[in-house]
Amino acid sequence: MASPAPRSPLAVELPPLPAVAGVRLGAAAAGIRYQGRTDLVMVELAEGATAAGVFTRNSCPGAPVDWCRAALAGGRARALVVNAGNANVFTGKAGAAAAAATAAAAAGLVGCPDGEVFVASTGVIGEALPYERITAALPALHASLRADGWEQAARGIMTTDTFAKAATRTASVGGVEVRLSGIAKGSGMIAPDMATMLCFVFTDARIGPEPLQAALAHGVARSFNCITVDSDTSTSDTVLLFATGQAGNADADLGDFAAKLDDLLLDLALQVVRDGEGAQKLVRIDVGGAVSAASARRVALAIGNSPLVKTAIAGEDANWGRIVMAVGKAGEPADRDRLAIAVGGVWMARDGSVVPGYDEAPVVAHMRGREIVIAVDLGLGDGAATVWTCDLTHGYIDVNGSYRS
Amino acid sequence: MASPAPRSPLAVELPPLPAVAGVRLGAAAAGIRYQGRTDLVMVELAEGATAAGVFTRNSCPGAPVDWCRAALAGGRARALVVNAGNANVFTGKAGAAAAAATAAAAAGLVGCPDGEVFVASTGVIGEALPYERITAALPALHASLRADGWEQAARGIMTTDTFAKAATRTASVGGVEVRLSGIAKGSGMIAPDMATMLCFVFTDARIGPEPLQAALAHGVARSFNCITVDSDTSTSDTVLLFATGQAGNADADLGDFAAKLDDLLLDLALQVVRDGEGAQKLVRIDVGGAVSAASARRVALAIGNSPLVKTAIAGEDANWGRIVMAVGKAGEPADRDRLAIAVGGVWMARDGSVVPGYDEAPVVAHMRGREIVIAVDLGLGDGAATVWTCDLTHGYIDVNGSYRS
Repeated sequence: MASPAPRSPLAVELPPLPAVAGVRLGAAAAGIRYQGRTDLVMVELAEGATAAGVFTRNSCPGAPVDWCRAALAGGRARALVVNAGNANVFTGKAGAAAAAATAAAAAGLVGCPDGEVFVASTGVIGEALPYERITAALPALHASLRADGWEQAARGIMTTDTFAKAATRTASVGGVEVRLSGIAKGSGMIAPDMATMLCFVFTDARIGPEPLQAALAHGVARSFNCITVDSDTSTSDTVLLFATGQAGNADADLGDFAAKLDDLLLDLALQVVRDGEGAQKLVRIDVGGAVSAASARRVALAIGNSPLVKTAIAGEDANWGRIVMAVGKAGEPADRDRLAIAVGGVWMARDGSVVPGYDEAPVVAHMRGREIVIAVDLGLGDGAATVWTCDLTHGYIDVNGSYRS
Repeated sequence: MASPAPRSPLAVELPPLPAVAGVRLGAAAAGIRYQGRTDLVMVELAEGATAAGVFTRNSCPGAPVDWCRAALAGGRARALVVNAGNANVFTGKAGAAAAAATAAAAAGLVGCPDGEVFVASTGVIGEALPYERITAALPALHASLRADGWEQAARGIMTTDTFAKAATRTASVGGVEVRLSGIAKGSGMIAPDMATMLCFVFTDARIGPEPLQAALAHGVARSFNCITVDSDTSTSDTVLLFATGQAGNADADLGDFAAKLDDLLLDLALQVVRDGEGAQKLVRIDVGGAVSAASARRVALAIGNSPLVKTAIAGEDANWGRIVMAVGKAGEPADRDRLAIAVGGVWMARDGSVVPGYDEAPVVAHMRGREIVIAVDLGLGDGAATVWTCDLTHGYIDVNGSYRS
């Protein structure tokens, strides 16, 4: 097993995380795979809580994703159980049974139907989940849940994340202040694991399952679905949003809630990119002038997923030629002779050729920084999108290409 | 500029290359960018030669690609001019003028219409092609063309290829033996260049432009369009096939010719993969049981382009979990619970979970070799496809992420 990667140079500090009414949480060491650290997180939600979820589009999802998709049909949630160290993916019928047994154990402790328990797993793939260790650890963990267990929870779901990830916001719903707090984990790798992104957000707002789902889908489309580390899609990616209703707000306009949720999700998504394997630079790619927003997003993702663009950024090389290549390979409408490209706000190429005599000095300085901004104007229409990624460095090869012990 | 990469451990020797009747070729040092090496190649074809071509699908192609597409409409060819060191891409109207001037100079020497000259360029992007150096060097180069200039030509088109690439075959057309010989260059990188694949094949067979184009399209679909180094698509990728007609065969069944052409193109395509940046292992991915051949190819490419799969192979880790992930992200019909995966001929996963107690020893030995074979059976239908790639190593980052001097 490779030694742990050093803390990302792009890491951010864990913010203070106040209580969210109706949410109690904590972590325990169940010994699923890791030694000497917590690897099991439980969250209990007040009666009446609603749930929303967005899952991986990978057609080979893990058993916990199957379980959550089914549980979501009820729209109600009383508990969440997450383990690190074993992803319970490609485990056949035993995997489905393990997810069900975990949910049943939590349901027994909370006193709710099994279908109101959500589960998520991250870690090694293709090995049977030793769920007896989870069910054995749950009673004591359940007894220890606290309103202030946020940091413990954020740490308990990490695999080889180099920093714990959380964010919090307040919003106003019908004149009542509500809180939103979330934790996330990003891509980490322990042979033979795969990168997985998990995110859990909790609010005390009172919101029915359908508007909650709509708000989550909107936010995820603009955050977690606009980030890429290496173009690979985990079989376990999961974003869940739970609303306890304890704030007691009336049904009301959710505009501010949705805006704050979008902002919180983007904060967490960018923390995941900041902890991308080997990441040394955070890269924002703004594409405008496309025939549609969807087209702009596909062009931005083609740039953000291009190994040649990402290695150039690692090399602090403002290599706009590779950006031209990535635009052209996206398969979207693009006209070479209308294309314009800027790095760090300086337009380097326009109308199909380099801008003669552009001042390279500010671009060179920008490329040496930690946060890189690339802008592309396709010159065709009004479609725009932004995607975030990181650079591709030796650290990525180290983390993912190390020999198995 | 980075120091040259060492010769690929996957390199193959240049084969003996007999003359192809009606083809004379050679190389010269025009000083376009490199010093102390040849960088300009010219080929003259006998009167009556036909041409076929397949080009990059990148929507931002270089000026030489535009020129060749137009020239191909005539179906006739008398000369080919290729330069290394400058790709003449994203160079606006000056780029189109440079391609035209190059073609005109060669046409004047050969005595043919400009539109019967094909041009190709590879190297730095976004800088004006100093075509005067080409037109100045062409007369002496033209005077030096020889029937045995194959190795010179193969070397003259290299950028940072670590070995020269060529292949030759014979075929029977209408009872007459004909020869096919080709040269290629693969992905090389000199900041701020991009990888480019060029391939030129010559035959003395007598074949009209339309059947020639059909044969080339067939062969490229099964060779150059089934290889990937890093998923990036050059703006200059070009495969041209010229037939001089000097063998004097009658119009006849082209079955054997097509088979030998397919074989030759695959040989050259695999040489390109063997020289992929940083490549230490050649990887074949056989996907079967898909709903169609096209679907199988997309699944195979998703595996072959996955950074997580490619780094695992670099680490000699038979990480079938990452293969499951890549299958699932391909966006093609796949059923997790019917999926089977083999490495080196050993089936490791079947019916949605690991094969209990499979013998890992032969798999470990296979992963330590230079040539890796991955097989995936989707269990859905009869669609099959094969794709070739290489591993993703520190060498790739070295070549593509080095700081600009």
